[in-house]
Amino acid sequence: MNRLIWEPVVRAALAEDLGRAGDVTTDAIVPADLCANAAVVARADGVIAGLVPGVAAFTIYDPAVEVITAVNDGDRVAAGQRIATISGPARALLTAERTCLNVLGHLSGIATVTRAVVDAVASTAARVVDTRKTTPGLRALEKHAVRCGGGANHRFGLDDALLIKDNHIVIAGGITAAVDAARRHAGHLVALEIEVDDLDQLDEALTLPVDVVMLDNFSLDDLREASRRVRAARDRGMRIVSEASGGIRPDTAAAIAATGVDLLSMGWLTHSAPNLDVALDM
Amino acid sequence: MNRLIWEPVVRAALAEDLGRAGDVTTDAIVPADLCANAAVVARADGVIAGLVPGVAAFTIYDPAVEVITAVNDGDRVAAGQRIATISGPARALLTAERTCLNVLGHLSGIATVTRAVVDAVASTAARVVDTRKTTPGLRALEKHAVRCGGGANHRFGLDDALLIKDNHIVIAGGITAAVDAARRHAGHLVALEIEVDDLDQLDEALTLPVDVVMLDNFSLDDLREASRRVRAARDRGMRIVSEASGGIRPDTAAAIAATGVDLLSMGWLTHSAPNLDVALDM
Amino acid sequence: MNRLIWEPVVRAALAEDLGRAGDVTTDAIVPADLCANAAVVARADGVIAGLVPGVAAFTIYDPAVEVITAVNDGDRVAAGQRIATISGPARALLTAERTCLNVLGHLSGIATVTRAVVDAVASTAARVVDTRKTTPGLRALEKHAVRCGGGANHRFGLDDALLIKDNHIVIAGGITAAVDAARRHAGHLVALEIEVDDLDQLDEALTLPVDVVMLDNFSLDDLREASRRVRAARDRGMRIVSEASGGIRPDTAAAIAATGVDLLSMGWLTHSAPNLDVALDM
Amino acid sequence: MNRLIWEPVVRAALAEDLGRAGDVTTDAIVPADLCANAAVVARADGVIAGLVPGVAAFTIYDPAVEVITAVNDGDRVAAGQRIATISGPARALLTAERTCLNVLGHLSGIATVTRAVVDAVASTAARVVDTRKTTPGLRALEKHAVRCGGGANHRFGLDDALLIKDNHIVIAGGITAAVDAARRHAGHLVALEIEVDDLDQLDEALTLPVDVVMLDNFSLDDLREASRRVRAARDRGMRIVSEASGGIRPDTAAAIAATGVDLLSMGWLTHSAPNLDVALDM
Amino acid sequence: MNRLIWEPVVRAALAEDLGRAGDVTTDAIVPADLCANAAVVARADGVIAGLVPGVAAFTIYDPAVEVITAVNDGDRVAAGQRIATISGPARALLTAERTCLNVLGHLSGIATVTRAVVDAVASTAARVVDTRKTTPGLRALEKHAVRCGGGANHRFGLDDALLIKDNHIVIAGGITAAVDAARRHAGHLVALEIEVDDLDQLDEALTLPVDVVMLDNFSLDDLREASRRVRAARDRGMRIVSEASGGIRPDTAAAIAATGVDLLSMGWLTHSAPNLDVALDM
Amino acid sequence: MNRLIWEPVVRAALAEDLGRAGDVTTDAIVPADLCANAAVVARADGVIAGLVPGVAAFTIYDPAVEVITAVNDGDRVAAGQRIATISGPARALLTAERTCLNVLGHLSGIATVTRAVVDAVASTAARVVDTRKTTPGLRALEKHAVRCGGGANHRFGLDDALLIKDNHIVIAGGITAAVDAARRHAGHLVALEIEVDDLDQLDEALTLPVDVVMLDNFSLDDLREASRRVRAARDRGMRIVSEASGGIRPDTAAAIAATGVDLLSMGWLTHSAPNLDVALDM
Repeated sequence: MNRLIWEPVVRAALAEDLGRAGDVTTDAIVPADLCANAAVVARADGVIAGLVPGVAAFTIYDPAVEVITAVNDGDRVAAGQRIATISGPARALLTAERTCLNVLGHLSGIATVTRAVVDAVASTAARVVDTRKTTPGLRALEKHAVRCGGGANHRFGLDDALLIKDNHIVIAGGITAAVDAARRHAGHLVALEIEVDDLDQLDEALTLPVDVVMLDNFSLDDLREASRRVRAARDRGMRIVSEASGGIRPDTAAAIAATGVDLLSMGWLTHSAPNLDVALDM
Repeated sequence: MNRLIWEPVVRAALAEDLGRAGDVTTDAIVPADLCANAAVVARADGVIAGLVPGVAAFTIYDPAVEVITAVNDGDRVAAGQRIATISGPARALLTAERTCLNVLGHLSGIATVTRAVVDAVASTAARVVDTRKTTPGLRALEKHAVRCGGGANHRFGLDDALLIKDNHIVIAGGITAAVDAARRHAGHLVALEIEVDDLDQLDEALTLPVDVVMLDNFSLDDLREASRRVRAARDRGMRIVSEASGGIRPDTAAAIAATGVDLLSMGWLTHSAPNLDVALDM
Repeated sequence: MNRLIWEPVVRAALAEDLGRAGDVTTDAIVPADLCANAAVVARADGVIAGLVPGVAAFTIYDPAVEVITAVNDGDRVAAGQRIATISGPARALLTAERTCLNVLGHLSGIATVTRAVVDAVASTAARVVDTRKTTPGLRALEKHAVRCGGGANHRFGLDDALLIKDNHIVIAGGITAAVDAARRHAGHLVALEIEVDDLDQLDEALTLPVDVVMLDNFSLDDLREASRRVRAARDRGMRIVSEASGGIRPDTAAAIAATGVDLLSMGWLTHSAPNLDVALDM
Repeated sequence: MNRLIWEPVVRAALAEDLGRAGDVTTDAIVPADLCANAAVVARADGVIAGLVPGVAAFTIYDPAVEVITAVNDGDRVAAGQRIATISGPARALLTAERTCLNVLGHLSGIATVTRAVVDAVASTAARVVDTRKTTPGLRALEKHAVRCGGGANHRFGLDDALLIKDNHIVIAGGITAAVDAARRHAGHLVALEIEVDDLDQLDEALTLPVDVVMLDNFSLDDLREASRRVRAARDRGMRIVSEASGGIRPDTAAAIAATGVDLLSMGWLTHSAPNLDVALDM
Repeated sequence: MNRLIWEPVVRAALAEDLGRAGDVTTDAIVPADLCANAAVVARADGVIAGLVPGVAAFTIYDPAVEVITAVNDGDRVAAGQRIATISGPARALLTAERTCLNVLGHLSGIATVTRAVVDAVASTAARVVDTRKTTPGLRALEKHAVRCGGGANHRFGLDDALLIKDNHIVIAGGITAAVDAARRHAGHLVALEIEVDDLDQLDEALTLPVDVVMLDNFSLDDLREASRRVRAARDRGMRIVSEASGGIRPDTAAAIAATGVDLLSMGWLTHSAPNLDVALDM
Repeated sequence: MNRLIWEPVVRAALAEDLGRAGDVTTDAIVPADLCANAAVVARADGVIAGLVPGVAAFTIYDPAVEVITAVNDGDRVAAGQRIATISGPARALLTAERTCLNVLGHLSGIATVTRAVVDAVASTAARVVDTRKTTPGLRALEKHAVRCGGGANHRFGLDDALLIKDNHIVIAGGITAAVDAARRHAGHLVALEIEVDDLDQLDEALTLPVDVVMLDNFSLDDLREASRRVRAARDRGMRIVSEASGGIRPDTAAAIAATGVDLLSMGWLTHSAPNLDVALDM
């Protein structure tokens, strides 16, 4: 993830915290020329994501701060483990601390949950993917966090892939008509996914030039049967993958993955992952 | 919360979802002049927050959309309850749906969790407050959501109140020196809170012109004793309140509130609240 | 194309023209309450693109202006044909004229050239597509203009599809290795195109899970042979299309299309199309 | 041209190309620590403009990139000539390539066309100037490119000079009234140009305090006569120049310049100049 | 002054005042549906400038507010005079009050001072003009205020006119060389002013194609002589004006104007004008 | 004051001055490689504020410029005293000069006036504070300047403290009701000030949990009596301070301070302070 993508987010977060007057407590108490060292430390086991953007809060606030990172994004850390060392003006360390931790804790929380789900389905061939159910303004960063946790990314927005949903099908007058219209409109490098609600719709979709079928809110039994049919299509030479979708949670993921679907898409990864507890020790 | 505060967030979220090409699926399939009705519906019990910003996603995308809200921020809703009715061009309904739900689900998740904690401590006099552990870029909206859930707000940034923490005390050379420096520096309308780590520090703080004492990671016993001493100071005419802080979770809040502290501050409300499930039914 | 996408461009163009002092000539000479009518008129035959963004220059400058459009984006117009009628404060008409015409003339120029190329290859099955060789800041608008001219869109950026070029292949150590690495990294909805420089590379590509092969700077003979092989792969059930690329100009397009390739990608459409002459008659 | 002026354009162009996910192909295939060298090379004869902004795409994307420019803005280059050498992380070279070339090719295209026109009129005293018919968002850069090609600049916007056009004259009730109103309104450092449509209007203008007369769509004969009258006024001590305007193209410029006019203003330079072909060789 | 120019300033001022939490006092006390009327009233005699931008603070905050202006920019008002009537939600009236008054009071202060100076020199032919010594971010608005007070505008920035100062002359190697270089570089619609420090420099300047001579820090005697020489040049047919400059204050303006100079430029108008006292009566 | 707070202001001021074409005079005359030295010098006695933001105009324009500051914000300087030394490319020195001086002169003007008032009341215990009557866009910088002059800051916006004014009291139905509503609404770290118009209102306020009473437009006699009552409340253990407010000017400050009030709030400091004369000597 290039700095051009995450820096505006970190800068805005710092500005939001500084307000108009800056850190009045630190400016009142801490001499401008006092230097200090600090460590960013994990307070719980987890997977790190957003380390470089997180610690950039310090250097954006004061370029005199020096940072040495001890791990990389995607690494597992244990409670108590040092993640990075920060040294420089004490004011910068105290003032930028919260912004750093908010970025790092939020993204690492997502990576940690993702990793847990990925591990839970490791005995299957299923991949875990995110959705567009992300926090406003943070989509690119949160999708990066999902990758750090071993997950993969669904589309990044409304524009980079076609996803035909139930309402589209109704308006188009059927699955075939919807796929035709979508393929005609979109460029040759835009992949197409279609949501199907039952096995009959699936069968129709498998006759069409689609890249992915989303099995929305299927029962486990139906998922098993749908996966079988998708694999059969693949055996016939069709390039097609199946995606289970609809309210999947960390505790239901393993059973769904065991049905043989190719992908589990989970909004939960980005909209409900709790923060990973990280702290700054001076 | 005035529109000037939340509109940039909603607008950025829409832009993030539209990308460069907009909703390619909907533009391909849905006629521009087709109109439709839809309902924003709760899929789980909860407390609503961010309804006006959420539904504004539709009207920002297309001013021809009309919205009738059925509840207000702060209202409890039951699973299945209609929250708002949306009517207008079908394209707008389909395209702005996800942005609306992301804003509304995220903020209502915070309100719902807050309300649960507030209810859990309702038999005490304690108030539940948030922290600066918020999602980057969303502080004002998330703090609004906490209020919708019956909570109250801690400071909004580093600039609108003094909060003297352990490191400040060490650098200043003690509690009294730190309070003196802070009061000298800050304006007459800047309140002052100080973090104390034990009862001795508390006693020193209670001799100083402070507005709030933060009891950081105190045991339940120490919280009880500290609360007693703060009340005693209040009985002597001092305007002072006590705040319990440090890793408080929804399941530990009631016990802490029962110690007699005035405030419980919980980062959990904003950094780990799961999304409230809301959906758009067309 | 939604207003959220084009409005910032038009607004910035107006601001760029107004500078700090606004239209000093018009403000000096034209009474604020004088109203007038005007017509946006084509001065040459062409295809219209960007009409709504163009005329929005008037209404953004002064919401009292009323606009009636006489054609739609994608329509052919003849020299002298009225495109839109503008009525309202004369100051707004005079001040926003240039911004309107710059937007409209630039985009219609692209649509006009695209239409000419599309017509020139109409006897073949080839589609004409754009590239990322667009004017800085105008990609979404220019790609819209290509569609108005009957063309289709290549990817919108570096992020919405995989395009493996010669340097990627060298670094990866071959076509197969490059495709493997790309597929592993990217999400399941990211299509993949690979550039091949000769027929041997093409044959290797046709054994891999790629969506598009770019035939870069192939001779006409090689294009014919390559197209044959791609069609043969398609007959075997592979979903694959061929794209001719490399310095294609309006006068060379027909011969290239006649080789049987599926797509012609032309940077020329967006980086070298001359303006369509449009004017405002008051 | 100072960096403060062009950097936002280059930064926006990079962001537009990177989208939300960045260069997925390069990130998938190219190791982060692989370094490489590359050369920006001209593929056709031309005049360079925008070299520093163009190559800044690389250093903005990754400050570790080093650039050595081999020519300066305004220099003529031959097909095959090296324009700059770029060395650094291979990812940056591949990712920022298109942004660099789009900026450089667009501006050099304008400089090249301008130079051709300037050369074509070199035997006359006429100067070649641009207009406000520029691409939205790029006015300052395109006007710089015109200077690189040996041309000069007309006004930069509606605010930095008075330009009284036919509609202004009609509304004011005549040339004299229009000039009076304009001079009264504007500051003492705002120059004044007036458009005249025939020789009678020219004669009236030459009695007024105007700096430039625009001879709009005059025939060659009328241009000759008008130029004679303007020179006569200059001989009488008036500081006045004549500008031929209206649909001048590269192939008609020489004949117009030969009429003796002082300036040729050509929208063509900025709205219809084809791209100069430049490439990156790794 | 078009809304596109002033609205960003007013919007930024409102945002600056609202901070993250908005008007906590008003939101706490005033019911959302309470409506009220208020009057913007002058508390001192003066000249109004910025009325439309000022009252727009109310409507930007809440479009339900209605405003009726009782005077126009440039009008003189007496202490106690009603300037505008505001009606609508009481919250909006209380919250946007300060932003409105800050904009209106600042700009009207400039207009008032300018008018006083213009009146003081009314018996002479001298015009009063501003400088670039303006408040950061407010140049266009402050220069509008100067016009409201009867003054005229010097250049708006470094780019819209040439102003050769003493250091430029030294570097160029003399007045003639500096004027030559400037004229060669700049477009045909860029006026040229040159600063001269004594009568000899003036004489040299009067032989050159300059539009304005700035008489910098001349004594009254020298101003008189310089004005005489400039008028003589004008009598010879040269289009030239003289500008007195350098620390001119309201109390020294009349004597300077009496020397016969054409223009008095005064930084004081924009950098030191006291606020005009305006208030909101509910 | 951290760079994140002031840099956008300086950058915007530079952009405002550069316009689209930059410094045409300097670019025309001064060789790009010519270096020079210059000194920022006070032309009048005063107090410096904004030195770092001011001189940053040079380094933002050209990072090759080097700056050595000779004084610090808050220092008194005498006419003729060197404030900073600037060395580097002569173009940068000439081009950024005005932006530097506008920032520095404006803020130092505020600091100088503030210092004069602070000195005038030095024999009393009163502190001098600013208001929200600041110049649009410059609040944080101007409040910093007040501190540089020895003053203190009132609230920074509508959101960081409660200030109950006369209209709030009327709407709430009395002082007690207003204070109750405000305290219920606001967080525990939001201080509360209330405006009282007479001694009876003061007495009521002194029975309530308020932090500050604003004595608005009290006569000197009433100020004396009010101050006495506030001190008496303080003697009883109440943490309360009194603030005199309402049209206080530098020449009336001493008499008001002598009444025994704790604070004098003066809009004059920021809305009417004349510029401090500073210059650049090359």
